[in-house]
Amino acid sequence: MAMRNRITIHDIARHAGVGVGTVSRVLNDHPNVSAETRAAVQKAISELGYRPRSAAKTLRTRKSLAIGFITDYIATTPFAGNVISGAQDVAWQYDHILLLVNTNGDPALEEAAVEMMLSREVEGIIYATMWHRPVTPPKNILETNVALLDCYVEDRSLPSVVPDELRGGYEATARLIQSGHRRIAFINHNIPDPAQVLRAEGYCRALADHDITYDETLVVQRVAEPYGGYEAMGRILRLSKLPSAVFCYNDRMAMGAYDAIKEHGLRIPQDMAVISYDNQELLAANLHPALTTMELPHYGMGRWAAQYLLGGELKPASPPQVLLACPLIERQSV
Amino acid sequence: MAMRNRITIHDIARHAGVGVGTVSRVLNDHPNVSAETRAAVQKAISELGYRPRSAAKTLRTRKSLAIGFITDYIATTPFAGNVISGAQDVAWQYDHILLLVNTNGDPALEEAAVEMMLSREVEGIIYATMWHRPVTPPKNILETNVALLDCYVEDRSLPSVVPDELRGGYEATARLIQSGHRRIAFINHNIPDPAQVLRAEGYCRALADHDITYDETLVVQRVAEPYGGYEAMGRILRLSKLPSAVFCYNDRMAMGAYDAIKEHGLRIPQDMAVISYDNQELLAANLHPALTTMELPHYGMGRWAAQYLLGGELKPASPPQVLLACPLIERQSV
Repeated sequence: MAMRNRITIHDIARHAGVGVGTVSRVLNDHPNVSAETRAAVQKAISELGYRPRSAAKTLRTRKSLAIGFITDYIATTPFAGNVISGAQDVAWQYDHILLLVNTNGDPALEEAAVEMMLSREVEGIIYATMWHRPVTPPKNILETNVALLDCYVEDRSLPSVVPDELRGGYEATARLIQSGHRRIAFINHNIPDPAQVLRAEGYCRALADHDITYDETLVVQRVAEPYGGYEAMGRILRLSKLPSAVFCYNDRMAMGAYDAIKEHGLRIPQDMAVISYDNQELLAANLHPALTTMELPHYGMGRWAAQYLLGGELKPASPPQVLLACPLIERQSV
Repeated sequence: MAMRNRITIHDIARHAGVGVGTVSRVLNDHPNVSAETRAAVQKAISELGYRPRSAAKTLRTRKSLAIGFITDYIATTPFAGNVISGAQDVAWQYDHILLLVNTNGDPALEEAAVEMMLSREVEGIIYATMWHRPVTPPKNILETNVALLDCYVEDRSLPSVVPDELRGGYEATARLIQSGHRRIAFINHNIPDPAQVLRAEGYCRALADHDITYDETLVVQRVAEPYGGYEAMGRILRLSKLPSAVFCYNDRMAMGAYDAIKEHGLRIPQDMAVISYDNQELLAANLHPALTTMELPHYGMGRWAAQYLLGGELKPASPPQVLLACPLIERQSV
């Protein structure tokens, strides 16, 4: 039952410098894709030798089994679809269907959802959060196999897959340094969570590795929304000595930073380069200029979690704590 | 088993002038909500007398049943989460869980998904598309109860729920007229589909009902993406006699129109009022100024479809073809 080591739409996306959503739209002849993007994706498909497989062929029997999929905030995130697609793509390879429950983070509902799934004899449960954080899943989930997705338990007693935030923060900063920037601001979220702490750590390490002194006046923390990014960038633009580049905690903050930079009469990227995190395609691809950003590996996390539950490999003695890389999506803002 | 006629988060959202996603974030103490928005939602909750119910209490038995939920493009739309939430909220009231399959629009995969669901003895299947259009579902779906969501079959032989695009187009245009505008441009999608045709029809009827002559130079069609909106608005801004307001086919096109209007040195809404369609909150709430738009009733369509399958009402002789209203979300662009 080992999976073939084949080209995936994730590889296509990285090669073409777009998100997996865009590749999916091109593969499915969705009308809302620009001609340029379509051409770039088709070039990548051709260069990598990708052949879309009929997913229907992977359904070998009618007597399918199921895995449970519990999410917290499916309605309020643009990421849920990619996570679910990744999990489903693997689940179907193993003839499994997803039983989906969205809980809005309600612990009583989570416990009830697990009971429901256990009564339906799922092979395992993916417990997924929509942003990277520690969790306390309901106790009854231990009655089956579990894979935590974009979250972890503090004692690391359950298998988990999360984005490699530190490496992503490092690579975003290094990308700016590679373009010649030495004075680099960092707009961060103002609530400590793994992404906030680890992306900052990556920023610091990249500066240190390139002999750039950390300057605390260049680091501003605000609410992780466009207005927070706007405020933070405004503060940075009042410094007597301006930076030439800024790394933003997420694409929403970058959206606000764009407004502040433009109102200040500066051009992106000539006067101020911008790099960001998340690859929320609706924003990142459509800002002027299009935003260079680190992609959160939602599709890949979905695949990993389903593969862990269904792959049949010997489970290691200690539950794996997997970090997935966040690929750089190059656009026009650096 | 009749549902109580209770206040829903949809009512809260309308009352507070925000999307259901925002209400959900406030109810769940999600950190990424501005203080102003949180206050507005809490005011609406208080005024309407809303009491969040523990969804867990609705699970009366461990022996739950299931309905199938087939979607086409879950990974590439911001709307899937709301549709799924609406369907799940009702399904859980009836002790049902959702079996989810995303097909990327592949007909062979759709047929296989239906087989899988039939073999698991679902009570019915919701067949959902992510934009309003005619469909040809796989034949085997007729072996169970079906509710079509955001789509319909041409001969109207299956029950269907879709947004009331005509009324939405009418009300968007009437909203501009109500603010004193008489010369109103319309930026439309350039591919005919129900939304494109019916929103245009609503625009025309609203003009006629207010004795405004239709002027074809004010109607420009482009790709339904930000760059299409940017191009269309640029063309409108080259007219010798400018309009004072514009109705955009969707929020993505409005995003591009904003850029064109600002580059032209005009202010929104003082020099050019903008109203739009979809309420993609990530865009609409975060543009400067925040965008007034008609909300697509995704949560409500999800609820309707699940209620139709599970409600146990006598099925009418001819399959219902339901139009759900698209509420006006007032922000700052009109």
